[in-house]
Amino acid sequence: MAGYESAQAAEQAFYQAFEAGSMSLMTSVWADDPDIVCVHPGGERLQGREAVLESWAEILAAMQDVVIRATDVVVLGHGQLVLHHVREQLFVDGQRRGVILATNAYRQTAEGWQMVLHHGAPDPSPPPALESAGLH
Amino acid sequence: MAGYESAQAAEQAFYQAFEAGSMSLMTSVWADDPDIVCVHPGGERLQGREAVLESWAEILAAMQDVVIRATDVVVLGHGQLVLHHVREQLFVDGQRRGVILATNAYRQTAEGWQMVLHHGAPDPSPPPALESAGLH
Repeated sequence: MAGYESAQAAEQAFYQAFEAGSMSLMTSVWADDPDIVCVHPGGERLQGREAVLESWAEILAAMQDVVIRATDVVVLGHGQLVLHHVREQLFVDGQRRGVILATNAYRQTAEGWQMVLHHGAPDPSPPPALESAGLH
Repeated sequence: MAGYESAQAAEQAFYQAFEAGSMSLMTSVWADDPDIVCVHPGGERLQGREAVLESWAEILAAMQDVVIRATDVVVLGHGQLVLHHVREQLFVDGQRRGVILATNAYRQTAEGWQMVLHHGAPDPSPPPALESAGLH
């Protein structure tokens, strides 16, 4: 399984997979490790590759014409583990439909950088919506 | 500012500070870094030492006879950055009052290990309550 050349590249692939509804890309983003963890907004804790990827298969099947922008990125890292804390801004037809606060963690393995943790929760007080003109 | 000798020791101090309502202990747990991030369940993103510690001062002032058990810990780490994903089980008078899913991150600084990120969200499907007899 191929990884990415940096945590930033892995994150870019994660949001690209999310937006495009691409399960093959999402599969390449996540590390093959029994300890990977994923918490979707309002969801339970999913642990391990099978549970995590199964949840994404359900979510990605429902993605259609959704644009996602990861903004306000805070990076905390050291060596082979990097944390990104982001706002995920979801747009449908140019209108913002939701904002999620997410903690994303990436690890450098022999294969390259891959995701090991995603923890999302609704943002109760998001900043004003981005200009839709700025989306593309 | 003194840090801790391991991520595990820093996490133990974090929950001890939380349970005891000790602001001085909580202050020693968090790293002195403008990029520290804290999201309380249902809350907005707080960034930087002042905003994070101010939020804890409010929370800790309200803590009284609360027992917290961090369970189901998943550890993802490498070198000087360690992630713990835990269930925070809160008990009052021996009764479980809430369960939070939390991502906690600790970093090794020149001072020792300190917390750099806490992201909590309500657990929608927690496991059966622990036996209260097992609390102490």
